[in-house]
Amino acid sequence: MPKIVDHDKQRQLVAEAAIRVIRRSGLEQATVRNVAVEAGLSVGSMRHYFSTQAELFAFCMTLFRERIERRIEMMSFSGPVLLEVRNLILQFIPVDEERKTEMEVWLSFNAKALIHPELRLLSQEMHDGLYKASSIVIETLRQHKLARPDLDPEIETEKLYALIDGLALHQIMQPGRLSSERIEHMIDEHLRMLCAR
Amino acid sequence: MPKIVDHDKQRQLVAEAAIRVIRRSGLEQATVRNVAVEAGLSVGSMRHYFSTQAELFAFCMTLFRERIERRIEMMSFSGPVLLEVRNLILQFIPVDEERKTEMEVWLSFNAKALIHPELRLLSQEMHDGLYKASSIVIETLRQHKLARPDLDPEIETEKLYALIDGLALHQIMQPGRLSSERIEHMIDEHLRMLCAR
Repeated sequence: MPKIVDHDKQRQLVAEAAIRVIRRSGLEQATVRNVAVEAGLSVGSMRHYFSTQAELFAFCMTLFRERIERRIEMMSFSGPVLLEVRNLILQFIPVDEERKTEMEVWLSFNAKALIHPELRLLSQEMHDGLYKASSIVIETLRQHKLARPDLDPEIETEKLYALIDGLALHQIMQPGRLSSERIEHMIDEHLRMLCAR
Repeated sequence: MPKIVDHDKQRQLVAEAAIRVIRRSGLEQATVRNVAVEAGLSVGSMRHYFSTQAELFAFCMTLFRERIERRIEMMSFSGPVLLEVRNLILQFIPVDEERKTEMEVWLSFNAKALIHPELRLLSQEMHDGLYKASSIVIETLRQHKLARPDLDPEIETEKLYALIDGLALHQIMQPGRLSSERIEHMIDEHLRMLCAR
């Protein structure tokens, strides 16, 4: 009987190997050859899973997006509104190892997308997801009549979007400078400022 | 008479050539050879100015920091407080070509510093400058009794620091999405929220 290889599962294993290489040595080192070695595959067999490096990177980014989406889907949204929106925001900030890996690879990817226009669309999609989450936070506060009446929803969505990406960037560049509790407190303070007294 | 070459000026010209290469093709392409070609120098003569690539990058980052410091020194700080602190914040956001170049190279540099610990210190110094500026903004608002009395200065410094870096990141990754006027309006709104009514 021929060996049956689950193609999708194998692609996922290759992507995870690529992510490990990127974290360890940077995006430039995530060549087909190096990723094959890391995944324990022959270079030739890599072709079955990804025909180009760009395709492999695209798959990694999609993997991250799906993980974030899954974390958000698992949220119950049944608790107090402020707690729920806070949790939504925290899905995008590297407060644990999983999120830290995502952000590190994502930052390298962003820098690469600057000079490779074909990667821009993917980078754009990730940004769109975060923008949408920021927009949901502001809209939720408004719908529950928690937001300050003079709050400009578009401006506050943009500000929250920038605040989250900035915090994530700082957590990656200066790990350990801010504790997870401190970051949660910052988010709470920001939400408090958005709300009417 | 022997040709007199201004060593410091020449180093600056080499660094500017390096910055052009980085913007065009990414940090990985800013090899000694490529930078020499861009600067119109022989590879051999590069040794007189920078002995390693790391030294060249360090010089570029110092150049950026000096430029920002010079822009801040040129500020009069004699006008209305809110306008002055707004201008201070805008020194760090790519609202014109000069700041755009700085941020693009800075972003690539950040990604590289993730996997090259010897570059971390420089990356850290740039971050420290922005943190200090954020702290000056919050302290100025407090000294002039403009800040909300319940404002936590440390938390708001951290938030402003993250907001500025996030905005700068978005301007670089998604150029043209937000106009300079829009960004200025966001900064104004943020300052307004920090101030007592």
